[in-house]
Amino acid sequence: MTFATLADIRAALVDLPPASAAALAGAGARNGQLTKPPGALGRLEDLAIWVAGWQGTDRPEIKAPLVLIFAGNHGVTAQGVSAFPAEVTVQMVANFQHGGAAINQLARAAGARLQVHALDLDRPTADFTQGPAMTEAETAAAFATGWAAVEDGADLLVVGEMGIGNTTVAAALAAALYGGPAGDWVGRGTGVDDTGLARKAAAVAAGLARHLPADPLQILQRLGGREIAAMAGAMARARVLGIPLILDGFIASAAAAVLQAVNGAALDHAVAGHLSAEGAHARLLDRLGKAPRLSLGLRLGEGSGAALAISVVKAAVACHSGMATFAEAGVSDAPPVG
Amino acid sequence: MTFATLADIRAALVDLPPASAAALAGAGARNGQLTKPPGALGRLEDLAIWVAGWQGTDRPEIKAPLVLIFAGNHGVTAQGVSAFPAEVTVQMVANFQHGGAAINQLARAAGARLQVHALDLDRPTADFTQGPAMTEAETAAAFATGWAAVEDGADLLVVGEMGIGNTTVAAALAAALYGGPAGDWVGRGTGVDDTGLARKAAAVAAGLARHLPADPLQILQRLGGREIAAMAGAMARARVLGIPLILDGFIASAAAAVLQAVNGAALDHAVAGHLSAEGAHARLLDRLGKAPRLSLGLRLGEGSGAALAISVVKAAVACHSGMATFAEAGVSDAPPVG
Repeated sequence: MTFATLADIRAALVDLPPASAAALAGAGARNGQLTKPPGALGRLEDLAIWVAGWQGTDRPEIKAPLVLIFAGNHGVTAQGVSAFPAEVTVQMVANFQHGGAAINQLARAAGARLQVHALDLDRPTADFTQGPAMTEAETAAAFATGWAAVEDGADLLVVGEMGIGNTTVAAALAAALYGGPAGDWVGRGTGVDDTGLARKAAAVAAGLARHLPADPLQILQRLGGREIAAMAGAMARARVLGIPLILDGFIASAAAAVLQAVNGAALDHAVAGHLSAEGAHARLLDRLGKAPRLSLGLRLGEGSGAALAISVVKAAVACHSGMATFAEAGVSDAPPVG
Repeated sequence: MTFATLADIRAALVDLPPASAAALAGAGARNGQLTKPPGALGRLEDLAIWVAGWQGTDRPEIKAPLVLIFAGNHGVTAQGVSAFPAEVTVQMVANFQHGGAAINQLARAAGARLQVHALDLDRPTADFTQGPAMTEAETAAAFATGWAAVEDGADLLVVGEMGIGNTTVAAALAAALYGGPAGDWVGRGTGVDDTGLARKAAAVAAGLARHLPADPLQILQRLGGREIAAMAGAMARARVLGIPLILDGFIASAAAAVLQAVNGAALDHAVAGHLSAEGAHARLLDRLGKAPRLSLGLRLGEGSGAALAISVVKAAVACHSGMATFAEAGVSDAPPVG
């Protein structure tokens, strides 16, 4: 597919294929025969069946998890919305490339490939308090970068990001999509104080006043950023390919929210990997209808929380596909002893 | 050490060495220099520093995690307290040995060694509603089995169990140690219905009436079981060797509670791996002063929840010891921009 306009993006989000009903049924039946009391593996059982449905087999495997990181810079940093200077984006991309960041360690620990895509870091988006963050062509090009970054051989996807200022951008997207005052959607990001938090809320409010009303993809164009659009593109491509997706924190969830606003089925392949400590993430996951699997107080971005959840998904699938059934193991199933 | 009496166990639990203060301080300082905003890795930061303190280095590694499973049978099953027949204990031990159980898959996924110790499965403990579950010598022998099972080379320990009826035993231990009505401490275990739950509460109440008052090790002898005593022995040995311990669910926590009741510092090396769906686990962890790291609705035992947490601890340590510092990566630290 080629992406030149918002209409091209919209066209990519129609007629999305469902998970395999046969695999879901087969995996559910298998789950009931494994050597454990019914339900005793809790959320691991749901996760394994979810992967089975998207992989189209009742005994799924996770052999090639992929972590994609997209990086972008944001004109709204001119409003003093981050505790870190904008040059940290390019410095952290170099850190990713040299293997020194948290996501490098987390991806390696999870046995996942990591690929980093820096999007025009020397050309920040426009400050959305002054005008649209991107042109339609820039939005489509960034979406296309994410779309193309998903390898067909990947069997589990995490999409992360780096971009100084992008918790403000994500807050603006969430506020525009779901409504409510700006202050409900901003948080401390990398660690701003009360004054910085007030500046974030003011910037978001100014962006909403300038750019609304708008449809979801116009919201992405006017208030988003290149890495956000690329994340949406990667998530959409995974949806089309049937690759299960683990959502990361606040920014990844905001990118996902744009897709779900375009097509309510666009995130059927996704689970929420974790609940971030970023203030509004819980509210955003609630709007997405996704319950987080982990809650460890992370608020780093980079895909870190979702990468941590890869190990949980792998463990779930390993149990589901590797355990013996009651019949295979010669274990007595529960009789009705009450 | 040799263990023949409860006094021998008590003697093993005095003068327990603390974590390394120098390593804790060094790891805390290193954590503040890593390329992330302060605190952005949440609970992973605490976990890495915890491992550092017990390993005595500011850059710890997890290379040899060990999962020990102890299995025992319980005379109290005569009271109809389990949804499964008692022969399932030996059947599941065979399942562990053939690699077909959940813990086999979870240990492999976490890169951990798994060792299974079956304790006299053909000789269940006595029914504690009728008399003491074990003799003093049986208790000491089981404790010794656990003590000897911990290999000095292990650098992270999980202690799990299998024993039809042992949620009732764990409930009796907790009720005896902490007080409160039996009904506060029993739960559905492998899946008993309301009638079974009432039988569990009645059995626990009968045991308490028969055997209290008693000191913590007498409680272990009179109301416990061989696998519980062995778990306590393994946890105590890890404490002496300075091997960090991840607590599993309700039964493992009850074994740990006996140790803490003997010496309030006996669990300083332990974190709670997860919150089990077994009803009273939250109350028990609260009494232990341990906050669970995962909450995924597991209620299987076998060490399963703690084995899942191994990957989280490994990820935490990988970040802590593998990440670049701001200086190493040439990344700008946060200036006071507010």
